[in-house]
Amino acid sequence: MPTLKISPPLKMRAAQIKVLLMDVDGTMTDGGVTLLSQPDGGALEIKTFDAHDGQGLTLAATAGLRTGCITGRESPALLRRAKEMKMEFVYMKQPVKMPAYEEIVRKAGVTDPAVAYIGDDLPDIPLMRRVGLAIAVGDSVPEVRKVAHYTTKAMAGHGAVREAVELILKSKGLWGAMIDKARA
Amino acid sequence: MPTLKISPPLKMRAAQIKVLLMDVDGTMTDGGVTLLSQPDGGALEIKTFDAHDGQGLTLAATAGLRTGCITGRESPALLRRAKEMKMEFVYMKQPVKMPAYEEIVRKAGVTDPAVAYIGDDLPDIPLMRRVGLAIAVGDSVPEVRKVAHYTTKAMAGHGAVREAVELILKSKGLWGAMIDKARA
Amino acid sequence: MPTLKISPPLKMRAAQIKVLLMDVDGTMTDGGVTLLSQPDGGALEIKTFDAHDGQGLTLAATAGLRTGCITGRESPALLRRAKEMKMEFVYMKQPVKMPAYEEIVRKAGVTDPAVAYIGDDLPDIPLMRRVGLAIAVGDSVPEVRKVAHYTTKAMAGHGAVREAVELILKSKGLWGAMIDKARA
Amino acid sequence: MPTLKISPPLKMRAAQIKVLLMDVDGTMTDGGVTLLSQPDGGALEIKTFDAHDGQGLTLAATAGLRTGCITGRESPALLRRAKEMKMEFVYMKQPVKMPAYEEIVRKAGVTDPAVAYIGDDLPDIPLMRRVGLAIAVGDSVPEVRKVAHYTTKAMAGHGAVREAVELILKSKGLWGAMIDKARA
Repeated sequence: MPTLKISPPLKMRAAQIKVLLMDVDGTMTDGGVTLLSQPDGGALEIKTFDAHDGQGLTLAATAGLRTGCITGRESPALLRRAKEMKMEFVYMKQPVKMPAYEEIVRKAGVTDPAVAYIGDDLPDIPLMRRVGLAIAVGDSVPEVRKVAHYTTKAMAGHGAVREAVELILKSKGLWGAMIDKARA
Repeated sequence: MPTLKISPPLKMRAAQIKVLLMDVDGTMTDGGVTLLSQPDGGALEIKTFDAHDGQGLTLAATAGLRTGCITGRESPALLRRAKEMKMEFVYMKQPVKMPAYEEIVRKAGVTDPAVAYIGDDLPDIPLMRRVGLAIAVGDSVPEVRKVAHYTTKAMAGHGAVREAVELILKSKGLWGAMIDKARA
Repeated sequence: MPTLKISPPLKMRAAQIKVLLMDVDGTMTDGGVTLLSQPDGGALEIKTFDAHDGQGLTLAATAGLRTGCITGRESPALLRRAKEMKMEFVYMKQPVKMPAYEEIVRKAGVTDPAVAYIGDDLPDIPLMRRVGLAIAVGDSVPEVRKVAHYTTKAMAGHGAVREAVELILKSKGLWGAMIDKARA
Repeated sequence: MPTLKISPPLKMRAAQIKVLLMDVDGTMTDGGVTLLSQPDGGALEIKTFDAHDGQGLTLAATAGLRTGCITGRESPALLRRAKEMKMEFVYMKQPVKMPAYEEIVRKAGVTDPAVAYIGDDLPDIPLMRRVGLAIAVGDSVPEVRKVAHYTTKAMAGHGAVREAVELILKSKGLWGAMIDKARA
């Protein structure tokens, strides 16, 4: 991971963020959709998250940033990981993401400029057009990068979410103090 | 993912496609054949698909393109994923692929020029010699690339199928309208 | 996969091979040792093989080449995959590999110059010093590359075994005829 | 894997090491946190270790180096792998790592200069500031690389631990003798 550089206009956007939302597959994971065949003909879902992303999200929570995810899929694996990372909002089975977004904004009592969203593919675009800080992961599709205020150097499932957290906490001047508060 | 460029002769081939077929291992996946050892001495198959490919295939179905796969292996994991991606034709346990191909073409009521096939290895070559649009994934073997009309920039299991879908829908002038129809 | 180039002295060695043996972890796989935690405190082994390698080994068997593996670990996953690839010799739980090697050579009725061995790490070195054709995978340790007659361009678990098979079958003038015999 | 070069001051530090400790996720693994969804809504942890790292750690034990790990997570998969690699110290569920470190140092009867520690993220920093030889994996965060005496060329889960073992055993002049003692 290289050291992060933040332009002044980006810093202004990032400093206002109170809620950090994100997609799951291809954003919190590398996009792999992994299924374990079962003897009865069914299949169980396996998800691979990233340890650096997890450390970032836990620090975000410690720093007072509220976090959440909105995804079209559903799995106990995501629920467990979201809990480990102290995520407050978890919306699964959302083929269209806007209703979940609006419910989160209402519950959190914030407006669009206080929300950041990290995404990688077409269903993320409507939210990215609304939020104060739209972040595309490094390996997102061109249409998503086009609407993003920032594209991470890191790839999805390999530090993209961590980079987004650092971008926000550094813009708020909170990252330095967080280093000593990191827990394994 | 870089933006796709399509040459005029390729566009002519792609614009005629009504059915998009593909291999599974090394085409819809990165070629990993993953087995989970069981206490009774058996093993269960794990398959890793790609979220971007899945989004592409779902959009293809929405756009009216019929899709399917022909593979030598068999697994509940593939069946579940094929259903999620609204695949119409799923042929498993096909050591030789031509009979399945001919059955699909007959059922779909199309001729060879209306079919595209994506492959990566030797058993895919006979089909690739027949279809209107033969696509090799970026990491296919040299013999396959030699018979392909197009080789994807993306690697198998990392967007190769998505790139093929975009190639076809853009050649038909349908991609732009699909962006707003994407569902997570 | 690039097209393979074979030097005349290498071709002489490879043309004599009747038995192709190999290590498993870091040779037939990418070196990942994957364990699934069980509720009872135990763990089940997951192994990821490569589809291109599998196609190569199946073609090797079709071409009359006898194949096998010698490994320190043990898993039902390997047993199933070895069967799928028509491997004749499977020796598991072999911390020292020479006894298994000598048993295979005796059973197969061949001498060292007719055997090829593919390896990646220190325990493979004694066998690689004996066989007629010692092959190191692309990401093997320096000590292994030093004793190898050939180092594959491909990495372990990503075509290294396939490259070894092609090297042998092409040196024997058998590869071209095999292409049409490939089965999925 | 390239051949390792060791500077004289680094060699002095490494030659004194008697105990080699390390983090797990992002150090012994590539940082992937993999969860298998269960039908009852729970999730089981899957961990992927590296065969080259394992060979290195087993050789370290053979050479008389004592090894161990300290991690915030907990899994039967890690316990099994640690046993396979003859690890003496395994401390799981340690959100803060210093107490475990101090207990290990006391049990082993050594002082800080005789301990090496390999890490990748913020919770590893306090230990890396104390030990005689602090090693950062190749893909560790910038804050960790800053406090390390050595950063591995290899990435975590792909030989970083092996490189650390070689660094220590070569500095002690023990590596050459170990090559023939390697067991699969």
